[in-house]
Amino acid sequence: MVKIAIDAMGGDTGLEVTLPGIVSFSQSYKSDDTEFVIYGNKSLIDKFFAQNPGNFNFSVVDTGCNVISSDENPIHAIRNSHGTSMHEAISAVAEGLADAVVSSGNTGAYMVLSKLLVGTIDGVLRPALVNVIPTKKSKTVMLDLGANTDCNAEKLFQFAKMGNAVANTLLNLNYPTIGLLNIGTEKMKGTEILSRTYDLISEDSTLNFKGFVEGDNIMDGSVDVVITDGFTGNIALKSIEGSVKLVASILKKEIKSSYLSQISYFLGFKKVFKNMCKKLNPSLYNGAPFVGLNGVVVKSHGGSDYVGFAHAIHTATELVRKGFIENIKNSLGKIDE
Amino acid sequence: MVKIAIDAMGGDTGLEVTLPGIVSFSQSYKSDDTEFVIYGNKSLIDKFFAQNPGNFNFSVVDTGCNVISSDENPIHAIRNSHGTSMHEAISAVAEGLADAVVSSGNTGAYMVLSKLLVGTIDGVLRPALVNVIPTKKSKTVMLDLGANTDCNAEKLFQFAKMGNAVANTLLNLNYPTIGLLNIGTEKMKGTEILSRTYDLISEDSTLNFKGFVEGDNIMDGSVDVVITDGFTGNIALKSIEGSVKLVASILKKEIKSSYLSQISYFLGFKKVFKNMCKKLNPSLYNGAPFVGLNGVVVKSHGGSDYVGFAHAIHTATELVRKGFIENIKNSLGKIDE
Repeated sequence: MVKIAIDAMGGDTGLEVTLPGIVSFSQSYKSDDTEFVIYGNKSLIDKFFAQNPGNFNFSVVDTGCNVISSDENPIHAIRNSHGTSMHEAISAVAEGLADAVVSSGNTGAYMVLSKLLVGTIDGVLRPALVNVIPTKKSKTVMLDLGANTDCNAEKLFQFAKMGNAVANTLLNLNYPTIGLLNIGTEKMKGTEILSRTYDLISEDSTLNFKGFVEGDNIMDGSVDVVITDGFTGNIALKSIEGSVKLVASILKKEIKSSYLSQISYFLGFKKVFKNMCKKLNPSLYNGAPFVGLNGVVVKSHGGSDYVGFAHAIHTATELVRKGFIENIKNSLGKIDE
Repeated sequence: MVKIAIDAMGGDTGLEVTLPGIVSFSQSYKSDDTEFVIYGNKSLIDKFFAQNPGNFNFSVVDTGCNVISSDENPIHAIRNSHGTSMHEAISAVAEGLADAVVSSGNTGAYMVLSKLLVGTIDGVLRPALVNVIPTKKSKTVMLDLGANTDCNAEKLFQFAKMGNAVANTLLNLNYPTIGLLNIGTEKMKGTEILSRTYDLISEDSTLNFKGFVEGDNIMDGSVDVVITDGFTGNIALKSIEGSVKLVASILKKEIKSSYLSQISYFLGFKKVFKNMCKKLNPSLYNGAPFVGLNGVVVKSHGGSDYVGFAHAIHTATELVRKGFIENIKNSLGKIDE
């Protein structure tokens, strides 16, 4: 069995998304081996499942209305976190009561609490937030996406190791290609830290390093893994989201602009548009694991819908089934060889 | 008259793009007050204009085949730059023989040479590369896009002042809104440098500061000016370019996937697609001025087509006509008041 702890109260809309997300997961993904421990307001959760019964096993741990809010300072939030749905759900993994935890809550608090409770794998300098994003060719693993605003070469080198393991696990790639994000592909470009990271990754024969890549290479499928610090990664990812939204909004506006374009929309373009949205739908890429922790901890986007939350649960179950933590340990272990 | 010095040999394809770009400019934009001094291989340039005569005034300064190549280390390039088309074109502005210079050549060399020859405006810590990009609502000025990989709070504060002047000049906005790019909108988010920059901009009443913005706000029109360091700005811009390309390529593939979608394409969607491309066409946003220099220096993208090069010339002429250097000086002068 795969046992998933759910922080049901986290995210912009809490229970309204997390509970339908669990139901959606059980309908859309392999779930016959999965059971849930749901942390949140028990009376509201029981009421929901009485009205929306699902075909899955779950238990509820009542944490009442104790929630870490999304805009709370992480340090402050952590001090007062005992008894909150997030704290208790993470503790379940730390205590071996669950195999993974999924939360849409305050990213900073989730990260720090997970480090405190679940701990990091031996030798890991800093855990990173990683995700799989769509590209022209297939999919790309990218990290860090916001956990570490400041990174030295050693941290970035470890991100390459960990990204390698994520691509092994989630993309089924044995020897994934790895690129280091920079403002040019020439060796002399960028910062001193990037130049040192370049050398460190180059010297490691277990990594299939392709050198520097640029912002437009993230989505063109140049490499299977893109390595960057959390500041740049977060801004690149959100820039991508923003521009996809812009293109979609221009298309919608243009389609409405004439009768002919409206007719063409209903005739055949509606399906084209739907397929495009399906390929780029952020909900279908939602669920970012923190890598480097001694347990499977998955972050769902705070503003995600239930389809996205279901995908985040799917990511967590896949990581557990495929022995992700062991893969990471093996990948990191190679550093010392 | 507006006199533009053209480095005709720069960029990935040199004369093949720059000379048709001049012709295209004279056909597509206000050019009756414009004349050109073209730096490059005179025999090839004369041959081109003999075959493609245009209705504009120009003279040619023969620099033979002396070119700074795009992948040359800027420091090395500069040492050997005397007599190259780029060096001579920049010198024309420095010596008052031209009002502005446009080049598609090596960005690093162009930046450093311009600083050396044209000089910076008094008090400017570092010039920045700025551009106007399309948004959901209208257009946004963004800087720095790659001139400064490392920025302290004082530099970023000056970028805000200079971005303000660019929005005054190119977007005709009196009191443009300004956002500082970060990985969250809350005051506590991001780096120490950003927090200090936030305070510096906030305290300046001549700037209409809206606080931190995120990557997805670059294109949603939240603010008129986005301030960031050159590393992040370059990667955000290229991420945007890459994702727009990805969406276009998915659309093209999907349109070809069925007869109905192909029919709908020719019926009405072709026009929708064309209008969308027109709105997002990077050529129509090509031409990034270096701000903070004591003259108008515009960088055209090395891989741009002639339509893009024409737009870069247009940007240069607009900056000259609208007294951009004076605007920048005024905007910066307010620091000392």
